[in-house]
Amino acid sequence: MSNLAERKARLIVHGETPYNAEPPLVRLRAAYLTPADDFYVRCHGDLPAIAEDEFRLTVDGAVSTTLKLSLHDLRSNFSHVVVTATMQCAGNRRADMRVVAPVSGDPWDGGAIGTAEWTGVRLADVLREAGIHDGADKHVAFESHDTVEGHPYGVSIPLAKALAPETLLAFAMNGEPLLPEHGFPLRAVVPGYAGVRSPKWLKRITVQDRPSDNPIQANDYRLYPPDVTAETADPAKGHTINTMPLNAVICEPMRGAELTVGTNRIRGYAISGDRAVVRVDVSGNGGRSWAQASLEHDANTPFAWTFWTIALDLPAGEHELAVQAWDEAGQTQPSDPNDTWNYKGYLNTTWHRVRVSVT
Amino acid sequence: MSNLAERKARLIVHGETPYNAEPPLVRLRAAYLTPADDFYVRCHGDLPAIAEDEFRLTVDGAVSTTLKLSLHDLRSNFSHVVVTATMQCAGNRRADMRVVAPVSGDPWDGGAIGTAEWTGVRLADVLREAGIHDGADKHVAFESHDTVEGHPYGVSIPLAKALAPETLLAFAMNGEPLLPEHGFPLRAVVPGYAGVRSPKWLKRITVQDRPSDNPIQANDYRLYPPDVTAETADPAKGHTINTMPLNAVICEPMRGAELTVGTNRIRGYAISGDRAVVRVDVSGNGGRSWAQASLEHDANTPFAWTFWTIALDLPAGEHELAVQAWDEAGQTQPSDPNDTWNYKGYLNTTWHRVRVSVT
Repeated sequence: MSNLAERKARLIVHGETPYNAEPPLVRLRAAYLTPADDFYVRCHGDLPAIAEDEFRLTVDGAVSTTLKLSLHDLRSNFSHVVVTATMQCAGNRRADMRVVAPVSGDPWDGGAIGTAEWTGVRLADVLREAGIHDGADKHVAFESHDTVEGHPYGVSIPLAKALAPETLLAFAMNGEPLLPEHGFPLRAVVPGYAGVRSPKWLKRITVQDRPSDNPIQANDYRLYPPDVTAETADPAKGHTINTMPLNAVICEPMRGAELTVGTNRIRGYAISGDRAVVRVDVSGNGGRSWAQASLEHDANTPFAWTFWTIALDLPAGEHELAVQAWDEAGQTQPSDPNDTWNYKGYLNTTWHRVRVSVT
Repeated sequence: MSNLAERKARLIVHGETPYNAEPPLVRLRAAYLTPADDFYVRCHGDLPAIAEDEFRLTVDGAVSTTLKLSLHDLRSNFSHVVVTATMQCAGNRRADMRVVAPVSGDPWDGGAIGTAEWTGVRLADVLREAGIHDGADKHVAFESHDTVEGHPYGVSIPLAKALAPETLLAFAMNGEPLLPEHGFPLRAVVPGYAGVRSPKWLKRITVQDRPSDNPIQANDYRLYPPDVTAETADPAKGHTINTMPLNAVICEPMRGAELTVGTNRIRGYAISGDRAVVRVDVSGNGGRSWAQASLEHDANTPFAWTFWTIALDLPAGEHELAVQAWDEAGQTQPSDPNDTWNYKGYLNTTWHRVRVSVT
C-alpha cells in the first residue's frame, strides 16, 4: 500500500494543514469507482491517527440505551450493506466562480468529487438498537476525532435522512479499509448530501431535538444571496447546504488541450443530489448549438454520478466546449456564472466550459 | 353558482375547443387557495357532461379483483383525505419562450397554475382494495371520458407515485364538488407532476407493466433538446415530463404597469415539483442587484406553491423586475431564455421578467 506522501504526489494539493487535494479531471474520469488514492480529500483540522483496537463509537442523546461500540461490535452486531454513492464537496467548482468576483476558500476545480462502493452498517440499524425516543423534529449530530480551531469537528443531519436506507457508517471504501485521510476507521456516508455532512474519524453520534451547535454546522456551509458579504453574513439567514444540486463537468479534454482536427472524444460526469440525470447536452461552440451525450455508465441510483461521453467533430481554431445537464424534473443548469455566485463560493452549478485549440 | 359562460368571461381564453384559459396574474395572486372559477383550465378534447348517478369508475388490469365503483361507493368505502396541492400545466410560461424562437401550443402566460384543497380518497387505498399483483416496473394508466382526436384521453404514472400518500382521486376542490371544466365528478390529483398526469372526468384505472400507449402519453408532453424540431422529434428520445421543475413568477405588478416613485409592493409565487422553495431573490434592475423576498405563505409541503412578497424602492424611469428562486438542494433558475428553449415550449423556468414604468 502506498503511503500518504506518495498519495499526495498524485493529487493537486490546495493546502497541507488542513490537507485538501483533488485529482486531475482526466484521472478522475478514468474509472466509475474512484480509487481511494485518487479520491479528493477535504479536511478541516488535523488528520487524526486512530488505532483500530482503541476505537469506540458512542451513541447517546435521546435514546433508550447509550451504546459504546468497538469496530468489532459494529461489524459483528449489524448487517453489512454496500452502497455506491458519490461524495462531493459543497465548494466543488469554486475556482470558476472567480470570473465573477473573488470568493473565499480553496480554489477547487471540478475534482472535489468521487464515487465509491462504501461498505458499512446502516446508521438506522445502530440508532434503532439504541432506541430513539418519540418526538418530532429530531436531528442526529456527529462528532469526530479531528480538531478544528480548538473544537472537535461536528455537524448534524435531519433524523429522516439518518434513518434513510442509503445512510451508512462505513468502514470500507471500494472493498478496502478506509485510508487515514478518508476517515479510518469509521466515517459517516450520507449520500446526496454535501461531503461536510459525512464526517470522517467518527467518535460520537447524538440524537437531539436541534441541529448541532458546533461552529461548522451553525456558522459554515451556508448558501447566501449574491448581495451578502463576509461583513454582512448572518448564518441564521443562510440556507444550510444538505442535498446537492444538479451539476456537470467536462473531464476530458482538460482546459488548454491541443486537439487534432476531426472527431474528438469528450467525456465527463453529471450528478444531482437526489434526482436522476436524464440528459446531458454538449456544445463545441460555447452553447450556440448542442448534441446529446451518451449516458455511458449510470449506477441507477440518484446518489451516484452518471458518466457521459460524446464524439464531436471539431474544425481548426479555438473552441469553447460547454456542458448542460437536465434532471428528472426537467430542471437544468444556468449558463451565466453570475446566476449562482456567492461570496463563499458554494454550489457553482453554471455550465462548465473548457477552452481548447484544434489544429 | 356561476355558469360556464360567466366563468369564461373572467379568464384569458386561449381556445374554445378545446377550452383553454388562465386567470390574470394579479387575480391569481389574490388568494393562496385559487377559487375554482379563477383556476386555469386545460382541455385536450371536448368537455364531457357526466351525470353523477350514472358515473362508474373501473379499476382493472394486474389486480386481483376488477372494481366498478359509483361515486357513492368511493365516498362510502374509503377514508376521505384533504391535500393542498398546486396543479400546473407543463406549458406554463410558454409565451415567454417566443423571445428566443417560435414554439407550438397555446401561449400560456404564468397563470396556467393554481392551488386547491383537494378532497377525495387515496388512489393507493383503491388500488389495494383491488389487490395489486406482485412484480416490478408497474404503471397505473388512467382513461377519461373526454375524446381527443378520436381517442379517449389517456395517460399513466409510475406505480410508486400512484401509491404515494399525496396522490388522490378527488371529488371536491376547495370544499365544493368539481366544476364541469375541472373534471366533474372525479379527477386524479397527482401532486408535483405536470397537470397532464392528473386526468379529469376519470373513467378507468388500469394497473399494467408498461406506460399507457395512448398518444398523449406515448407521443406528447416530452422535453426535447434545443436542436430538435417538429420534423426530427422522436418521442422515444424525449424525456417524459412528470415532476415539475423550480419556477417563480411575478404576479403583481403586471407587465406594463405604471407605478409611482417610492416603495412598491412586488408579489408572486414560487414552486418546485417535489422540493421546498427556500429563497426568492427579486431585482428591480434586471438582475444587477437583488433583495430577498419574504416567504409570506407556505403550506409546508413541497406540493403547494409558496407565496412571496417584497417592498422595493423604485426611482423614476423604465425598470425590469426579475425573480430568481432557489430550492432546498441549492438549485436555481437560469437567467437566459435560451437555456431552456425547446420547440414544444415546455418547462420555461428562466427568470420571469416584468417591465414597468415608474413616474
